Amino acid sequence: MDITAALYLRVADHDPKNPNWPDRDRIIWSTGHKAPSLYLGLAFAGFCPKEDVALLRKLYSPYQGHPHWLKLPGVEVSTGSLGQGLSIAVGIALAARLDKKNHHVFCIMGDGEQQEGQIWEAAMEAGHFKLDNLIGIVDRNRLQIDGWVKDVMNVEPLEDKYRSFGWEVVTIDGHDMNQVVEALEKAKENAKAKPGSGKPTVIIANTVKGKGVSFMENVAGWHGRAPTREELDKALKELGLEGQIPVELLFAHAKQYQAEVERKLEAKMPKFHRNYWWNAAENMKAQMKPTRLGFGQSLASNGDDPRIVCFGLDISGSITISEFYANKPERKSRWISMGIAEQSATSAAAGLAKEGKLPVFGTYATFAAARNLDQIRTSICYGNFNVLIAGAHGGVSVGPDGATHQALEDCFAMCGLPNMSVVVPCDMVETRKATDYLLLKHVGPKYIRFAREATPIVTNENTPFVFGKANVIRLRKEAPNFIEAFETKLESDYRDECEDLTIAACGPMVPEAMRAAWILKSDFGYETRVLNLHTLKPLDTEAIVRAARDTSVVLTAEEHQIGALAWPVSSAITQSPTLYGIPIITGAIGVKDRFGDSGAPWELIKEFEVSAEHIAAKAVELIGIKKSQTGPPVSEVHLVGTK
Amino acid sequence: MDITAALYLRVADHDPKNPNWPDRDRIIWSTGHKAPSLYLGLAFAGFCPKEDVALLRKLYSPYQGHPHWLKLPGVEVSTGSLGQGLSIAVGIALAARLDKKNHHVFCIMGDGEQQEGQIWEAAMEAGHFKLDNLIGIVDRNRLQIDGWVKDVMNVEPLEDKYRSFGWEVVTIDGHDMNQVVEALEKAKENAKAKPGSGKPTVIIANTVKGKGVSFMENVAGWHGRAPTREELDKALKELGLEGQIPVELLFAHAKQYQAEVERKLEAKMPKFHRNYWWNAAENMKAQMKPTRLGFGQSLASNGDDPRIVCFGLDISGSITISEFYANKPERKSRWISMGIAEQSATSAAAGLAKEGKLPVFGTYATFAAARNLDQIRTSICYGNFNVLIAGAHGGVSVGPDGATHQALEDCFAMCGLPNMSVVVPCDMVETRKATDYLLLKHVGPKYIRFAREATPIVTNENTPFVFGKANVIRLRKEAPNFIEAFETKLESDYRDECEDLTIAACGPMVPEAMRAAWILKSDFGYETRVLNLHTLKPLDTEAIVRAARDTSVVLTAEEHQIGALAWPVSSAITQSPTLYGIPIITGAIGVKDRFGDSGAPWELIKEFEVSAEHIAAKAVELIGIKKSQTGPPVSEVHLVGTK
Repeated sequence: MDITAALYLRVADHDPKNPNWPDRDRIIWSTGHKAPSLYLGLAFAGFCPKEDVALLRKLYSPYQGHPHWLKLPGVEVSTGSLGQGLSIAVGIALAARLDKKNHHVFCIMGDGEQQEGQIWEAAMEAGHFKLDNLIGIVDRNRLQIDGWVKDVMNVEPLEDKYRSFGWEVVTIDGHDMNQVVEALEKAKENAKAKPGSGKPTVIIANTVKGKGVSFMENVAGWHGRAPTREELDKALKELGLEGQIPVELLFAHAKQYQAEVERKLEAKMPKFHRNYWWNAAENMKAQMKPTRLGFGQSLASNGDDPRIVCFGLDISGSITISEFYANKPERKSRWISMGIAEQSATSAAAGLAKEGKLPVFGTYATFAAARNLDQIRTSICYGNFNVLIAGAHGGVSVGPDGATHQALEDCFAMCGLPNMSVVVPCDMVETRKATDYLLLKHVGPKYIRFAREATPIVTNENTPFVFGKANVIRLRKEAPNFIEAFETKLESDYRDECEDLTIAACGPMVPEAMRAAWILKSDFGYETRVLNLHTLKPLDTEAIVRAARDTSVVLTAEEHQIGALAWPVSSAITQSPTLYGIPIITGAIGVKDRFGDSGAPWELIKEFEVSAEHIAAKAVELIGIKKSQTGPPVSEVHLVGTK
Repeated sequence: MDITAALYLRVADHDPKNPNWPDRDRIIWSTGHKAPSLYLGLAFAGFCPKEDVALLRKLYSPYQGHPHWLKLPGVEVSTGSLGQGLSIAVGIALAARLDKKNHHVFCIMGDGEQQEGQIWEAAMEAGHFKLDNLIGIVDRNRLQIDGWVKDVMNVEPLEDKYRSFGWEVVTIDGHDMNQVVEALEKAKENAKAKPGSGKPTVIIANTVKGKGVSFMENVAGWHGRAPTREELDKALKELGLEGQIPVELLFAHAKQYQAEVERKLEAKMPKFHRNYWWNAAENMKAQMKPTRLGFGQSLASNGDDPRIVCFGLDISGSITISEFYANKPERKSRWISMGIAEQSATSAAAGLAKEGKLPVFGTYATFAAARNLDQIRTSICYGNFNVLIAGAHGGVSVGPDGATHQALEDCFAMCGLPNMSVVVPCDMVETRKATDYLLLKHVGPKYIRFAREATPIVTNENTPFVFGKANVIRLRKEAPNFIEAFETKLESDYRDECEDLTIAACGPMVPEAMRAAWILKSDFGYETRVLNLHTLKPLDTEAIVRAARDTSVVLTAEEHQIGALAWPVSSAITQSPTLYGIPIITGAIGVKDRFGDSGAPWELIKEFEVSAEHIAAKAVELIGIKKSQTGPPVSEVHLVGTK
């Protein structure tokens, strides 16, 4: 905040009335998660109304969990995936040189972020090109999510590192405003003195996380959580801001905005005779737990196997991988903290697997399956190594973090890799079973994807889970609670009941598909075969072909860009000679080729049209097509199709 | 070679008779392209027959273009994508520590490779974990493919960099065998002295590329080319090896092996009444040029646009991006060499685009669309920036480089990204037109994929190319040469001719599809509608639906893992209400979920079953299914399908 104030209110040349003024200084927030500080800087500088910053992380809001330049004037670029901002700043600094402009490019980074190799690629470039119009700022608060930087993955001595990459280095007390302003202004002056002939400057600012609030200072846990009302009051008091901030007004503003969001969302939802939302009625009740918990449970119970080695990639608690050692301190020797360096961790996992270990790592699926794709491909899959990768926080239901952290494409890349197996379990229990299986029984590269938000538990200990084999889930009766109304069988044990349609789903879309089956039965009398295709690769094409043959309507549902599930399902149908001549129509529920958004998880399920209501509405449409075709002879079908 | 000799013949503890001896020293070749040196080291140490190294880069050979540990005992891990080896070595060193083993891990790197950020992630880890059982070796020959390292992207001072990352640094003359052996042995001793408490060691070996051969020394061009017979004789003479190497025997051995490969391949090919291979007959003649040339031509002709900025990523000549400035030295100011640092280059391109530039970059598609996937996603696509990415050397026809360098999965990831457009042109001319269009007319993130090998030119100046719109190609007549026998129209201008089938293809599979049409007509009298789906995203689903309706058989052909084209084509068919009830069968030609292989490009086209012969054989099978269905009424189709 101190550096933000110095930059936005004093040092940087910019014009809040003309945010795109070509000669402005550019400020790049490589640590996108510092967005609240950025928004306050913009607001106090006059780019946006101060009270609107209270709309942080709300649906449709310009104040995304990680900054998005297309939503808010003054935000220069969209960031959130650590380590990219310095490279973007290099690009902007190169553009300024090409255009013979004299403005400066500031880039705000974290110290944990220095673990990302891309930082050193960019640092090398800035040194090589002598970009003295580039000023890096490292917020050295010595903490990252998993703990102290020195313990997670020591980045020091940072000064020596930057010097060896060709940078001018200044170290300051980041809370001493004189030092902050002096360092920033001097760095600007240096550049003006002899443009292009000097060095980029990095200002390493020693700071204290949560500075000024006794219970926040130096506590890693305050990375991403909001204070309670009591904590807020205490914090404002300690900061000497008591009574100076219109807290009630800000809360009211946020509340009003939120009400409008909810009204908009509800207006867009498909309508049925009753409200079928989770827990809306007594018999719609389901226990809710995040699927990720099952991953941690499995690691906890199987972790005695001496081959298992778990990597920490800085969000270990959240994705529950730390359950591996949580109650078993003796396992700490097989817990290796790798920091925020997904590429190297991926190849290092291959090295451990080569030596007979069974490495497990995971992080946000965007970083577990995209940042490191080439390493998964070459180090792990080409070598065919026994490594378990967890793509955590998959789907839009990640919630307020927003688009950068919502993996919606990971299964395309993972399913595309030879030797790779991919499982997307439907609830916490199935996640535990899938992890049990993948960890100890399946040898080879394997990817498990799970979600962040609590979702309904729809399986139990007795529900079958066979890798590569679909389950059929059928609504059987009214029951005191949701899950008991359904029967689940291995698809290979199931016999056709001439259902009206099939909904083929994976992951947290399975409970939604079940709820859609409920809606379709209650409102329309339709019978639904829900196929739980938990194994995306290898896909149970036989189950798909049988379902298509028996029901003629196959609707897929995936919390992913449409295609990871929908496309191979269609392909299984059209390639099957036994289905030739059988009328079949498919539909696809999923994200429609767009990026995510900040918002509450269940709001996003609605906004991205992947709720049971959307599944049911599409199902009704498809059944309508099936019913409208009265069955002309095949020889005449050609004409029907062409009219 | 000097370091290889020292390592494999003196310093490393290993047992050629027991390559998996658990206590052996591990040697990791992070620079996988140094494979010839590795193979010779293994051969002279007794791991494999010396004469077999002459099978380098041949099909089915264990001596892959880049080393593959599953093919050759003594190769520790598979490498080829630069920067991954040091991380793998870190993993192996960590495993040794976990197992309380005292062996050492050597990792051979290049100096150009130091541009990869992953190297610095791994260097940080090795320093953090005090992995003194890890010994890095940098072959500092000061050259990389694009020229001198200091010009391409200066990595110096390497000694300071490694020291600041916590390493012990030794600099030696890499051609002075005493210095080499002493440095390696001392590094081993250091580790033994006090295991776990010290530092990793890096030996920076000053070397001369092509040492000892006058015309090879310090010439970057010798990176990947084999000498002619005359050059070989001269080189052996200068090295004092004249008459000491059984050159003729080696050539004969390679020739015999090659003959066996060709016999095997031919035995696996589908057979027809005549030989329809390219140029087999006078009227099968086609001009052959690599598609990549069209990319360079477009950059050369459009490069005066001052917004265009081209990046060099170290294989600039090969992918023809250097044509941008080749004859226009004044454009050199808009040519930025970024070295081997694909991640940072990608984000830097976003920074330039943010400032109104039109950045263009490209490299092997594996590194242009996988190594940097998270950067393409967040820096470019989420920000919706106008950047042209060239995925060069796509498909198995890359040839002898082998699996690591054959991009077979890139379109999955690229088509999966919101805001991204993807074009896969069919020949050099279409590549030029597509580049012209994407570069100047299409605003947004865009990916063009092209191949390395010369492939038939099947379009001309007058052939339509409309982004997002398919072409129909029809065999019309016998003609003096191949291309003239065909007529090409925009699909939207085409009227149904009740063809027997559709072949929907993209990229260099289009000429193969045309040849398949020729085979099908000549041998079977079948009429084929060839759909050139050059735009993979957005896909021309209307053209697909019409083709499916008109022909009932749709066969896709892609030089990619099956699915990037095949799956959305199937999805377009099954989701179309107008096709409901129309019997349709599809088939898919492409790579079948396996990694590539070293070999001659056209051998690989055969081995991976993506030739016209394979397309034609599959087409005959599908038409057989169509014909065998005699057309029962739709009401009875259910039974037909289930029998």
